[in-house]
Amino acid sequence: MLPKAVTEYLQANRQKHLDKLFELLRIESVSNLSDGSCAAAAGWLKDYLTGIGMDCRVVPTAGHPLVMGSIHHSDDAPTLLIYGHYDVQPPDPLDQWLSPPFEPEVRDGWIFARGADDDKGQLFANVMAIEAWQAAGGPPINVKVLFEGEEELASPSLEAMIGDLTEDLAADALLISDSAFYSESEPSITYALRGIVFAELTLTGPSCDLHSGLYGGVVANPVNALARMIAKMQDDDGKVTLPGFYDDVLDISDQERDAWAKLNFDEQAYAARIGLDAAAGGERNDFSPLERNWARPSLDCNGIVGGFIDEGAKTIIPSRASAKISMRLVANQDPEKISDGLRQFVRENTPEGIKAEINFHKNSRPVLLPKDSQTMTAARDALTEAFAAGSTLICCGASVPITEVFQRILGLDAVMMGYGLPEDALHSPNEKFKLSQFYGGSVATAAFIQNLGQSAPRRPDEG
Amino acid sequence: MLPKAVTEYLQANRQKHLDKLFELLRIESVSNLSDGSCAAAAGWLKDYLTGIGMDCRVVPTAGHPLVMGSIHHSDDAPTLLIYGHYDVQPPDPLDQWLSPPFEPEVRDGWIFARGADDDKGQLFANVMAIEAWQAAGGPPINVKVLFEGEEELASPSLEAMIGDLTEDLAADALLISDSAFYSESEPSITYALRGIVFAELTLTGPSCDLHSGLYGGVVANPVNALARMIAKMQDDDGKVTLPGFYDDVLDISDQERDAWAKLNFDEQAYAARIGLDAAAGGERNDFSPLERNWARPSLDCNGIVGGFIDEGAKTIIPSRASAKISMRLVANQDPEKISDGLRQFVRENTPEGIKAEINFHKNSRPVLLPKDSQTMTAARDALTEAFAAGSTLICCGASVPITEVFQRILGLDAVMMGYGLPEDALHSPNEKFKLSQFYGGSVATAAFIQNLGQSAPRRPDEG
Repeated sequence: MLPKAVTEYLQANRQKHLDKLFELLRIESVSNLSDGSCAAAAGWLKDYLTGIGMDCRVVPTAGHPLVMGSIHHSDDAPTLLIYGHYDVQPPDPLDQWLSPPFEPEVRDGWIFARGADDDKGQLFANVMAIEAWQAAGGPPINVKVLFEGEEELASPSLEAMIGDLTEDLAADALLISDSAFYSESEPSITYALRGIVFAELTLTGPSCDLHSGLYGGVVANPVNALARMIAKMQDDDGKVTLPGFYDDVLDISDQERDAWAKLNFDEQAYAARIGLDAAAGGERNDFSPLERNWARPSLDCNGIVGGFIDEGAKTIIPSRASAKISMRLVANQDPEKISDGLRQFVRENTPEGIKAEINFHKNSRPVLLPKDSQTMTAARDALTEAFAAGSTLICCGASVPITEVFQRILGLDAVMMGYGLPEDALHSPNEKFKLSQFYGGSVATAAFIQNLGQSAPRRPDEG
Repeated sequence: MLPKAVTEYLQANRQKHLDKLFELLRIESVSNLSDGSCAAAAGWLKDYLTGIGMDCRVVPTAGHPLVMGSIHHSDDAPTLLIYGHYDVQPPDPLDQWLSPPFEPEVRDGWIFARGADDDKGQLFANVMAIEAWQAAGGPPINVKVLFEGEEELASPSLEAMIGDLTEDLAADALLISDSAFYSESEPSITYALRGIVFAELTLTGPSCDLHSGLYGGVVANPVNALARMIAKMQDDDGKVTLPGFYDDVLDISDQERDAWAKLNFDEQAYAARIGLDAAAGGERNDFSPLERNWARPSLDCNGIVGGFIDEGAKTIIPSRASAKISMRLVANQDPEKISDGLRQFVRENTPEGIKAEINFHKNSRPVLLPKDSQTMTAARDALTEAFAAGSTLICCGASVPITEVFQRILGLDAVMMGYGLPEDALHSPNEKFKLSQFYGGSVATAAFIQNLGQSAPRRPDEG
């Protein structure tokens, strides 16, 4: 149980913390703009962290700056690194917001603003936990924070610099609060993320667009060829046919299958929310929707274009056509091997009269974290203490590349304990964060800090 | 043989006719613009035709005007109607022209200008033939001309008005000079055109673009579904799989097969001109390239678009995707029946989780003309007289909707005797027309007029 001094501090400062979060939310730190707002948000955070007694600095990067802070408890205590991001997605389409995206307001128990959930609200809940511990005499462990300003751009600067920061970021545990509960009544920790391979496939036929009357039936058409190629990448059962695609996929354990089956998943309601009658994609004959999203790889065409796409008719055989294709990978799949499989497939399926070119964007490895580590136990107990409900272990079908980078370069398994809810409308108009999640999150993080002090192992190489 | 007065007139007036054609070519009568240039070209033609003694008028339409002219020889003589168009394609891309598109010039025996071949040059060769006959005392038959200004827009105004003009356009034979020889040494008449069905197919999945990580493998993807649908429209042999697609296709006769095999078709050179190694489209295992283009129906995707198509990566499952699909039809196929087949195919192949919508543009019927009519014989003899070479009967894979309209509404089989060459770069930069084709064409038309006077049958219902 948390010391009374910590919980009472959080309780007593609710209005102050909400006011401070509003200050941060008012800064329009959209990371794809370079108008100085991100630097302003970083400066605001540095001042706040300094104010609560952290040793803090702003670290310039090729893009938006990092904010790094630390509180030293003792050389013998374990160290927790808390990651978050202060940048936000662009607010468009503006006309769909009921209140302006950078003028936060509370309605019916929810904070409405761009970044309310993702990730300023969650980040600030963690700051509040540190602050409460400081008010109660200091946390029982060493605490570091790393807040970046380019998460919505896939963290290019942080990833480039992380190798140089290994000493500064050395820790025993990593907390990332940038995710959501499975539902409000099911507090959750995410233990698996999918990886991604993103490719652009371009097929070229004739050297220029041709008259479809004069050449139709005579020469191969790159759009038709591309359609055939994409179609052939999956069979009638939704299985991906690329060579070796499923070779390394781990079976879903009976335990996972049972646990997920018990989750409150209403397929009808899920489909209806996105305008569908059914979740009819992928390997639907063999796996449930949650299984497909959490533990099965997938292949999707994210975009396709070729030939005449304006209004009306133009009867051409296009010279070229291209498609963006992403594959989501699950634990144990290797993005390089999957990329090779796609290369081989394209080579073997390019018809006569067509040239194929394939380019890959940066890929990201899947993440699968141990479900029974002492850190994980500390986190689950913290969730139970804060939200008075058993914690649920879930997965996420999306990719959070920086998680794998922390794991690979710093050797740190993250605890992905986020305080959002599925209905928070991240990246969309009217993004929101429930007040009870905001305050509850700060209690959970404070409890996690305490539990780590009691249980978390220390890094073997620390003096 | 033509009277000496006709041939000598054409010979003596070569420079004058070239100068006059240049005047017409300088008028920028691009039909998709409404800047008055088309009306100017129509006015120029009316003046010229009046100058050579035709009874001529400009007929306003909802779009660009028609120019109609006639010379009456006698009630007992047959009547020839000559169709042409004075509008041209837009000249873009301008930077690829070696000389400005509307400043005609002769280089190495070719006239370079937009419209040099298509169709001002060919149209004017026909006018010169009429003029030469006038200089020799008048043609031996009644001659009418119909020049329109919207051919490059698919003749909307002419088609709408042609029913009201049946009396004015009544004739025994129709000449359309808006095509090309098979090669310079093979003067040709076109006796078949393909028809067309043009459809737009749109597939819709979720009500908005979704995160491909959070939904990949769970919901059906409209781009992947569209690719599968298009792929399934043809089998591995390039045969179209739509229900009933080949039901009404006529077999290629042994006579046609033999005649086409004798044509000087160099597949290697043909493919190389469009940047390819081989003409590897359609039913390549069963039919030669000429057979496929001239006597077999085809299906091509003219454009496709869906999802994210800008630079870089965006990992979405698109909400919708659409494709433009054209089918070229051969004699005896019915566009309505083919459209029904496509509708049925789409209905039967729309997967769960996807909605399909299909819209059709105006279609056009295929044209197949008798190869042995007296009119055709008159035309072939005229070609032989003008170009000192046997004439070849060819087909064209493209569609010229107005030809079928003349046939259906006026009951007139056209003689498609055009004087262009395959290398004339119609619709492209540096469009050109060979001087020898221009002058030879005028002789051929003059000879055709004479031959009709000697052989062509009169319409049975004419008084």
